[in-house]
Amino acid sequence: MIQTILNHRSIRKYSEKEIEKQILDEILVAGTKASTTGNMQVYSIVVTKNKVIKDQLWEAHFKQDMVKQAPVILTFCADFNRFNKWCELRDTTPGYDNFLSFYTASIDALLAAQNVAVAAESHGLGICYLGTTTYMADKIISILDIPKNVVPVTTLVIGYPDETPDLTDRLPTDGIVHFEKYHDYDAQKINEIYKDKEELPSTKELIEINKTDNLAQIFTEKRYTKKDNIHFSKSFLDIITKQGFMNNK
Amino acid sequence: MIQTILNHRSIRKYSEKEIEKQILDEILVAGTKASTTGNMQVYSIVVTKNKVIKDQLWEAHFKQDMVKQAPVILTFCADFNRFNKWCELRDTTPGYDNFLSFYTASIDALLAAQNVAVAAESHGLGICYLGTTTYMADKIISILDIPKNVVPVTTLVIGYPDETPDLTDRLPTDGIVHFEKYHDYDAQKINEIYKDKEELPSTKELIEINKTDNLAQIFTEKRYTKKDNIHFSKSFLDIITKQGFMNNK
Repeated sequence: MIQTILNHRSIRKYSEKEIEKQILDEILVAGTKASTTGNMQVYSIVVTKNKVIKDQLWEAHFKQDMVKQAPVILTFCADFNRFNKWCELRDTTPGYDNFLSFYTASIDALLAAQNVAVAAESHGLGICYLGTTTYMADKIISILDIPKNVVPVTTLVIGYPDETPDLTDRLPTDGIVHFEKYHDYDAQKINEIYKDKEELPSTKELIEINKTDNLAQIFTEKRYTKKDNIHFSKSFLDIITKQGFMNNK
Repeated sequence: MIQTILNHRSIRKYSEKEIEKQILDEILVAGTKASTTGNMQVYSIVVTKNKVIKDQLWEAHFKQDMVKQAPVILTFCADFNRFNKWCELRDTTPGYDNFLSFYTASIDALLAAQNVAVAAESHGLGICYLGTTTYMADKIISILDIPKNVVPVTTLVIGYPDETPDLTDRLPTDGIVHFEKYHDYDAQKINEIYKDKEELPSTKELIEINKTDNLAQIFTEKRYTKKDNIHFSKSFLDIITKQGFMNNK
């Protein structure tokens, strides 16, 4: 079981094989077993298999091929819509139109997503998360008819793998873990933590392709630029506001 | 393996038995195997076992006994501090002082947390998430010496269980899952989804203890009130700003 977790690799090429209904049902149930704040279950999972809708999602997710290829796309949403409707039907006024509630619902959605990911992998399925969900939340809301008080926060692409990529490199665990308190990093420690990653042949290849001096510059100048981050910060905050989660007074 | 996930229950009473070093190491490694945006690994895990520091965390987490009892407290943080320091050492300017970057780092931290939770349970350990982390982020930052560009987003209490609670009730899966697109709920559907939960003997007992008319009112009037949510929305947004993640221009 821990072996499933240790063997995780993101899959970006999928076979045409459908996911059996029983297996899909089981991994969705696995999602609902994750911890949830106060057992409120303030999240939803949208399961998309229809080709037309998947094509629209593909367009929203920066036209990444795997969104078309994989048989199932799962959009995880922070969701207070269902809970609020229940409160109103029970003659009480929900007070969940604020940032804390959005963040709480995000936690629910993300823990459920990771349970689904692990459960899927334990059945030999491959998965990949789509970070484009927060960038393109407005488009996804419109494609999936997502109502107020609901925000899509992440997406899982799921299917049988048509590739067997190497394990992704990770920083040494002691670069991520702190004992007792947080111990801040000095230059020597940073160099130590990133040394192996920077010396990988795949890293050297990336630097050559991207024509940068080093790996860090690929992140800051190519992949996750300040300009894009600011653009998507604004659009995501706008969506959170528009969906009804920024009444903090 | 899926069985571990399906059998999850939060544990709130812990035995004094320590967690073996090898097992703790393995579940931390399991955390680092979770998907992470662009393989940036923008999160940290603070492992606290020291009694004095645990007592301070107990105070911050609303004095919940399990924080004192459990041998290990794991604080998961959204962390761009390490990544930013690396970028600066490599002569490039990180652009991660904005809301999107905070949210991206939160996703990394939460997926890692759920991997740790599942890995721990697969070893017979019990876990409980502490939602108080976002409420009391300022206190936790000060207790754990957390620097700028880092925000604690959730906490796991881990140890060997000293209770065997029943499985927590969950809404029917079709109350959480939508097919193809989001299908909004009408009154009849809401009543259907919540029916079993509302009829549980434990729910009836809760209503009697709380002197409310129904379960929804326990949430809105007692557990998660608008007043508290607004208070904690403001304080958490203040912390996100103070830690350097709200430069969205």
